[in-house]
Amino acid sequence: MDNLNIGRHISGQFNEDLENVINHVMHMGGLVEKQLSDSLKAVYENDKELAQKVLASDYKINNLEVSIDDECTRIIAKRQPAAGDLRLIMAVIKTIADLERIGDEAEKIAQVALESFDSKQQDLLMNLDNLGRAVLQLLQQTLDAFTRMDVDAAIELHKADKNIDRNYDALMRQLMTYMMEDPRSIPSVMSVIWSARAIERIGDRCQNVCEYIIYFVKGKVVRHTSPDDM
Amino acid sequence: MDNLNIGRHISGQFNEDLENVINHVMHMGGLVEKQLSDSLKAVYENDKELAQKVLASDYKINNLEVSIDDECTRIIAKRQPAAGDLRLIMAVIKTIADLERIGDEAEKIAQVALESFDSKQQDLLMNLDNLGRAVLQLLQQTLDAFTRMDVDAAIELHKADKNIDRNYDALMRQLMTYMMEDPRSIPSVMSVIWSARAIERIGDRCQNVCEYIIYFVKGKVVRHTSPDDM
Repeated sequence: MDNLNIGRHISGQFNEDLENVINHVMHMGGLVEKQLSDSLKAVYENDKELAQKVLASDYKINNLEVSIDDECTRIIAKRQPAAGDLRLIMAVIKTIADLERIGDEAEKIAQVALESFDSKQQDLLMNLDNLGRAVLQLLQQTLDAFTRMDVDAAIELHKADKNIDRNYDALMRQLMTYMMEDPRSIPSVMSVIWSARAIERIGDRCQNVCEYIIYFVKGKVVRHTSPDDM
Repeated sequence: MDNLNIGRHISGQFNEDLENVINHVMHMGGLVEKQLSDSLKAVYENDKELAQKVLASDYKINNLEVSIDDECTRIIAKRQPAAGDLRLIMAVIKTIADLERIGDEAEKIAQVALESFDSKQQDLLMNLDNLGRAVLQLLQQTLDAFTRMDVDAAIELHKADKNIDRNYDALMRQLMTYMMEDPRSIPSVMSVIWSARAIERIGDRCQNVCEYIIYFVKGKVVRHTSPDDM
């Protein structure tokens, strides 16, 4: 947590508050990562039991979002943070909102595992899995950058989402062709499409978290900024 | 702004800060509403010029989000609000994030207007338009509830999203059947599907704003709460 500089506060209690909130975000991030990796595994191995487990576990992430949000509001009211401390709290509030939504997207992915696919359609699931693994790695690296408040990593990861988008577009073209060649497959291919969309959205949400890291460290809002200007 | 009670602060400057920020949110809401209604009109009338205008105007909403967000952080640092005032600022910060994303969804809808549809497919666009008008009304009512911080309206509107979801599901089934009957139509029907999805997402984001209204007035987080418990 180099960039966090939490130890510098005169009030030991304030240090503890900030350390706690960051630890809770890391715990939440770990849960979200597990939900995503379980949902991908459930789809790839067509493991309906694991998919049900993912669907039944989302409430934990929701509860964490509410409690961390509450924690942040209490810190603002009690400690009246300014400058970097306030930016940190703001970055946390926004990050947990995106993490919670990544949890929702993982649920959507898990739902695909509840369907049945014939052997030919298994190929589509393999390509979906490749996209999913790339996004899972992006999420892991983003959470890692958040923990260290590593602005250089955040900028690199922000750019990396472009590759995900490119692979997503290629997969979409493949899925469309598949439907056109075999219209009976449309319902099951559509569920793969929703799942691919959910994966792509997770990439966008990782980008958001990278923007909050940059905001905290640099004090600059980079949302809606082109990659080159960043 | 009955529930806002802005006039009660001893500091006249604080009153002015809060009034300004609410006015800016209302201005942003007005722009978002206009973007949505223009994008629906562009699709319905196949008006490519209007669609381009929507795509070219999104930056205004983005800029407003950044500036209101900044305004809120400055109010927290300078005025150290507590209790209801702090909840109001928090509700604003979250609301503008959802409004900005509604703007993004309007862009996605406008993109459909750039495609060409044959006369048979025009039927699909009409059903899309019905869904779009219902969501536009929901957005207008949600912004209205926000302006008055009307918690009863917020609870009713939160429930109303269910109707949107039902109509969305019906439209999706219709679009899937359409693709299965005429596989050559898949690329253009898919663009209608993305647009319908964007409309449905706007309904969800209106629900979020209703939750922030309830949070501000009641001091209670109702996210992830079932409609009956609300």
